[in-house]
Amino acid sequence: MQKPILAKGTRDFNSEDLYKRNYIINIIRDNFSKFGFNPIETPSFERSETLLGKYGQEGERLIFKILKSGDFLKGIDGKDFKYSNLAPKIVDKALRYDLTVPFARYVVQNQNNINIPFKRYQIQNVWRADRPQKGRYREFLQCDADVIGSKSIMQEIDFISLFDSVFNDLNIEGCLIKINSRKLLLAICEINNCPDKFGILTNQLDKLDKSDLNVVKNNLIDNGLDKKIIDSLFEIIELSKNFNDNLEEIKLYFKSSEIGLEAISDIEYIFNYFSKNKLIKSNLVFDIGLARGIDYYTGVIFEVLPPETISLGSIAGGGRYDNLTEIFGLKNMSGIGISFGLDRLFLVMDELKLFPATSYNSVKILILNFGLSFSYDLIELANFLRSNNVNAEFYPDPIPLKKQLNYANNNDIPYVIFYGDEEKEKNCFNLKNMKTGIQEILNREDLIEILSGN
Amino acid sequence: MQKPILAKGTRDFNSEDLYKRNYIINIIRDNFSKFGFNPIETPSFERSETLLGKYGQEGERLIFKILKSGDFLKGIDGKDFKYSNLAPKIVDKALRYDLTVPFARYVVQNQNNINIPFKRYQIQNVWRADRPQKGRYREFLQCDADVIGSKSIMQEIDFISLFDSVFNDLNIEGCLIKINSRKLLLAICEINNCPDKFGILTNQLDKLDKSDLNVVKNNLIDNGLDKKIIDSLFEIIELSKNFNDNLEEIKLYFKSSEIGLEAISDIEYIFNYFSKNKLIKSNLVFDIGLARGIDYYTGVIFEVLPPETISLGSIAGGGRYDNLTEIFGLKNMSGIGISFGLDRLFLVMDELKLFPATSYNSVKILILNFGLSFSYDLIELANFLRSNNVNAEFYPDPIPLKKQLNYANNNDIPYVIFYGDEEKEKNCFNLKNMKTGIQEILNREDLIEILSGN
Repeated sequence: MQKPILAKGTRDFNSEDLYKRNYIINIIRDNFSKFGFNPIETPSFERSETLLGKYGQEGERLIFKILKSGDFLKGIDGKDFKYSNLAPKIVDKALRYDLTVPFARYVVQNQNNINIPFKRYQIQNVWRADRPQKGRYREFLQCDADVIGSKSIMQEIDFISLFDSVFNDLNIEGCLIKINSRKLLLAICEINNCPDKFGILTNQLDKLDKSDLNVVKNNLIDNGLDKKIIDSLFEIIELSKNFNDNLEEIKLYFKSSEIGLEAISDIEYIFNYFSKNKLIKSNLVFDIGLARGIDYYTGVIFEVLPPETISLGSIAGGGRYDNLTEIFGLKNMSGIGISFGLDRLFLVMDELKLFPATSYNSVKILILNFGLSFSYDLIELANFLRSNNVNAEFYPDPIPLKKQLNYANNNDIPYVIFYGDEEKEKNCFNLKNMKTGIQEILNREDLIEILSGN
Repeated sequence: MQKPILAKGTRDFNSEDLYKRNYIINIIRDNFSKFGFNPIETPSFERSETLLGKYGQEGERLIFKILKSGDFLKGIDGKDFKYSNLAPKIVDKALRYDLTVPFARYVVQNQNNINIPFKRYQIQNVWRADRPQKGRYREFLQCDADVIGSKSIMQEIDFISLFDSVFNDLNIEGCLIKINSRKLLLAICEINNCPDKFGILTNQLDKLDKSDLNVVKNNLIDNGLDKKIIDSLFEIIELSKNFNDNLEEIKLYFKSSEIGLEAISDIEYIFNYFSKNKLIKSNLVFDIGLARGIDYYTGVIFEVLPPETISLGSIAGGGRYDNLTEIFGLKNMSGIGISFGLDRLFLVMDELKLFPATSYNSVKILILNFGLSFSYDLIELANFLRSNNVNAEFYPDPIPLKKQLNYANNNDIPYVIFYGDEEKEKNCFNLKNMKTGIQEILNREDLIEILSGN
């Protein structure tokens, strides 16, 4: 006998789970459509080389690799019995780690069949061999929207509006949309004459929400950054959080860096729009300390935190990437996109009790089974109801009535039909409303009228 | 530079593909609901032992295996450098091969939280390392409905009705629903004193639709079946195809086998129903030569062929399985289910030109971009339209007008808005219908009224 258990970090979803998940997914999908995105889908696995080398060292470790089919050791020498030698020889594909890299591959592969700027959304699973914890699984659904082929900063504003519109429709009040530009992190390294420290800087800043501030500072010192640089960095980070008040001081800090001033002007353009056109349910904040862990971002980056009362990591994120399609041979295709993590949103909705209270079971009626002599009639009646758009089922076995009624109650089925000798003789149906307990004797036409209403 | 190419046997789907695929999926889903099924989902990968040993030798070969994370060779001896030794040590999970085995695992694992009989549908991808060909891919979507926990033959009838109802809603005329019972194949071995030949018999009969009849016969002889037995077998197969006419003769053939007569009586019960209640769009035929390749079937089996004009393998199938949950420790849970293969249905719909002709692009309006000084207004206008349920986008860059209009045409966007100096001054919008070419000067309220209609 085998144990019926799940693979680590994976989940089953029952009908109630799916009802709630689809509630969120449909709102996200509707908003993607409202904002002019159309769907695409890519395969669950890609050739290894499509995925490898895109996510940084830590990301790469988390990619699930698929063994070649058949005898994967055929033609391989025993000398290769070593992880680093063997892995590339016995693996040729891997499960999708995010939706952005496959999207970049898609754009290049289909460049002659798409219209630029190309706007697409993609709602699909991704897989990461991460250590499972609250809100983090090894298989999870991402909901992404991206535009590729335009550098217009109007899109940054549009994505912030999209975040807010989704939260508004989900009725989540008080999310914090943090923005920064990776160009500012580059500029900081430029200003301080340490362009080689960009990697370690983004890497450490990305740990700020999980680690102690002093640990991050010490790590930066250990990696050769001067204490003075670090102090001024954290000063400018604090100033950035009050962008409108401290704009002049921030500009002063970046005055010697062209790329820095350019990024500040982008941020200013964004903030000016939202001081005239307020967000509905969310708050926007600039934070030079925001870095994002993923390597391919080059411009404005986003990260969204749930309302303060909920202790949970980011629920959405995104950013601009200038060179992602270049790896696949297509230059000058700046892209920008965002991603909602369904599981985190689910936890937020659940904690705030924002899911509408409706039965997830769509069955309207159970036809009770009084024995073999009625069976053809029950099947025929069920099909008659279905052809009139009533979700119907019959109980498949003539077991004691009480058990059949229990089945209806446990499944939250609102109506049952009694159809026994008397009903058969009179060609009628005894309909019981399971909530009110009221029973009525009806013919076919009345039955449809009652059941297809409300 | 990396080549932007797909892994073998996988596909991207663009918006038009998805529009068509979802057209079919939604009809299947609606029918599953009408027939009383609710959705569940299981993870894409399962522990290896959950999947292995369930699909027969040929099936097992096609399962995609996922490498353990990290250094998978850690603690493994160099002596194990051999396929059969190494594979079980470096692999601990595998991609879902079908939806039925994970469903059985789900039922046993959740036996205390589900109501028996348990009806569920599941629409998810499965993966098989098969040789790709027309209508066969390595990742494909299956649409399954199953009932578990009742032996009632009423369900066999219900699933046949479900097939027909789906084909009716898809408007596919003339599918052939073939049925048989695996009990009859058992009975044939029983009658002919060769109970050990059941495996080879089902295996060879399953090849009938692909192989030459004589090849199959010779294979059976080579495997030790007597020529007389084979001749009588193919005689009874031919008789079975005219069930109503040949019922007495068929009964005579099986008269010495209790299980055989039981199965014939089940088939009779099914045929009697459908001679009183005709199928709408499909044809039902009995065929003792139908075997199905999957090991777990024990009772009635189904296979559906597309209309005769289309040369393509089966588009749906299914059957009853009595012992599937037993592997996971739960006895006496007879189940029955069916599965639609989306790709084959897609090919049928495409060949018969049954997809409705509608634009897949849901964007209603493009706001043209006349320069930076209008940009905030364009974003604001787009958001105003969206908040009134109009799918809207602005062009992100102030490129020449002709190119912007080309974008609208190429994307099949029905309306554009001109908003330049004059419009800004007068606080109005110049709306152009891209099909009629008619332009109108409108205020906000009129704009919404026109765009939210039809």
